[in-house]
Amino acid sequence: MPGQDSETIFTKIIQGEIPCQKVFENEHILAFLDIAPLAEGHTLVVPKCQVERLEDLPPETAAEVARQLGPIARRILAATGAEGYNILQNNGKVAGQEIPHVHFHIIPRRPGDGLGYRWNARPADPQALADLAQRIRAATD
Amino acid sequence: MPGQDSETIFTKIIQGEIPCQKVFENEHILAFLDIAPLAEGHTLVVPKCQVERLEDLPPETAAEVARQLGPIARRILAATGAEGYNILQNNGKVAGQEIPHVHFHIIPRRPGDGLGYRWNARPADPQALADLAQRIRAATD
Repeated sequence: MPGQDSETIFTKIIQGEIPCQKVFENEHILAFLDIAPLAEGHTLVVPKCQVERLEDLPPETAAEVARQLGPIARRILAATGAEGYNILQNNGKVAGQEIPHVHFHIIPRRPGDGLGYRWNARPADPQALADLAQRIRAATD
Repeated sequence: MPGQDSETIFTKIIQGEIPCQKVFENEHILAFLDIAPLAEGHTLVVPKCQVERLEDLPPETAAEVARQLGPIARRILAATGAEGYNILQNNGKVAGQEIPHVHFHIIPRRPGDGLGYRWNARPADPQALADLAQRIRAATD
């Protein structure tokens, strides 16, 4: 791809060099089953342009992905009988990203499946929150 | 809101009845700091229309949310110094959804923070994957 040093496995899948179990495809995105799923129906939704992180993806491409997430999820629920799902998208190795090509996970959920995000939330200091919000609003893109 | 039995806390925040620490706002979405954050800069990005699950959100509204996720995340990273982030969006109580109004979490990540999605993936049987992909493609929206 232009401006990229190396192709990821997702680019090879998009180009048909590596096979996949396709769930959906249009001009902008490809969705296919994860071959090492967390749950039955675990699907990856990938923009066809090779960009590593969401903040570097053109906003219109992010929009094209998001338009399809709900309709694809609905079909996964219909086919698998799962009650709910998580959308997960990781940016950076520190966040668990393994393939340097933006991808959204659709992870079907069932009672007692042991999945989910590790949750250890604590109430924040209101003044610290106010200061932080101001800093974020003031940050330049 | 039309067609809704009860307002969620997010609708009250959007309408200004409950205060928030705003990070970003436009005609379609509001982004604000979570008051019980998983990490400094944990932000919720919420469409202004009150819809419980992503598969029921109008695709154009999902697109409006997605256009802003990357730019907002970039500002959060700039303001907090975090190296990466997870985007998380939960649908259904079984998936950890607590507020019945679509919301995307932006969770900044740092080394050793103990956060992330519980990962217990196993290789799937190729024929089972092929059969499942066919069932998903054949499912009606």
